[in-house]
Amino acid sequence: MLAVIRVLTTDDEDLLNAHGRLISERYGIPTRSYCIPDQPRGIYDDETERVAVPKIVQLARRVEEEGAGAIFISCAADPALAEVRATCKVPVIGAGSAAAAVALAAGERIGVLNLMESTPAAVAAVLGRRMVAQARPEGVTNTRDLMTPEGKKQALKAAGLLVEKGADVIVFACTGYSTIGLAGDIKKHLGVRVIDAVEAGGLIASYVLPC
Amino acid sequence: MLAVIRVLTTDDEDLLNAHGRLISERYGIPTRSYCIPDQPRGIYDDETERVAVPKIVQLARRVEEEGAGAIFISCAADPALAEVRATCKVPVIGAGSAAAAVALAAGERIGVLNLMESTPAAVAAVLGRRMVAQARPEGVTNTRDLMTPEGKKQALKAAGLLVEKGADVIVFACTGYSTIGLAGDIKKHLGVRVIDAVEAGGLIASYVLPC
Repeated sequence: MLAVIRVLTTDDEDLLNAHGRLISERYGIPTRSYCIPDQPRGIYDDETERVAVPKIVQLARRVEEEGAGAIFISCAADPALAEVRATCKVPVIGAGSAAAAVALAAGERIGVLNLMESTPAAVAAVLGRRMVAQARPEGVTNTRDLMTPEGKKQALKAAGLLVEKGADVIVFACTGYSTIGLAGDIKKHLGVRVIDAVEAGGLIASYVLPC
Repeated sequence: MLAVIRVLTTDDEDLLNAHGRLISERYGIPTRSYCIPDQPRGIYDDETERVAVPKIVQLARRVEEEGAGAIFISCAADPALAEVRATCKVPVIGAGSAAAAVALAAGERIGVLNLMESTPAAVAAVLGRRMVAQARPEGVTNTRDLMTPEGKKQALKAAGLLVEKGADVIVFACTGYSTIGLAGDIKKHLGVRVIDAVEAGGLIASYVLPC
């Protein structure tokens, strides 16, 4: 079983399970989703990441004790990834580094599609000088904006910019793109390879999970 | 369909199809295997790589014309990878960079298991400073040596050295380890994660192949 750690607080089961469901459906892996306490708005700056780290570590310890075969931290900033790896024995995967790694294997020149911020350090560190461009949709200030026709249009436009700058692979540096299924739209309209961060995490998990 | 390019010359169908078969069985992907002309001993030094590059490019062009959905160059040195990517429109995957990338996503400190040579540039470039150790089995001078009990014992010993040096993930920098199924032995005896280069290539292919 893959434990999926969502780095926000929610009692909406549908939202909680959204990433785990994507992974289960695509890779046939059993998943169980968990969320951290007291952060309904998730992680959105250095301070909210700092307070989230010990919560993620504690949660990871618990899910390992409960028998998780691997742990997926489903956020492209890879919060607490190093700390959880230092604590847990099972494989620990971060959405950001997994997506960046799959992009490195899938193409030559990587374009990063961010959401609100610049490229997360976890993504930039893996890509190194293979990152040829980064962009983000105009006018989008949270993941909810993405769910509007205008938000999706702006995300597609930003992806187009990455292709213009020479990217042969686009990597999502936010898991918010996974839930709206943006990869399909980009492939259809721009004909470029796309690496979705949640899917990439699931792909790596499907490989490292004990059979 | 995934085209698997073997960088040697053989009329032994079993040998030719060995990597493609592993990928088909593990990921349910249809594969077709091809080999380059006039190199029965494959690629084993700079000169044999140099002469192989145009052959690989020509072969890749042909398999793309014949309808391959993606191309896998099944050698950890990633010979001609950049050249083929510059020529072909379909996704092109190299065993070395794919294995290194999957290792980056699966763990923190990567140990590289080489065969006869030192770490291929294609693997080292992706791993960067995440490569904590490299080793190779003593007394092994070709892939046939690996198929003996002594060869396998030495390979396991080299893998043990990587773990002693702090690796939490071992990546195979030679596809010769795939055919002897060394990953299973290492996991069993050393309890460490292993990234097999042919399997890693298949994993990335399973993601980028058009559905």
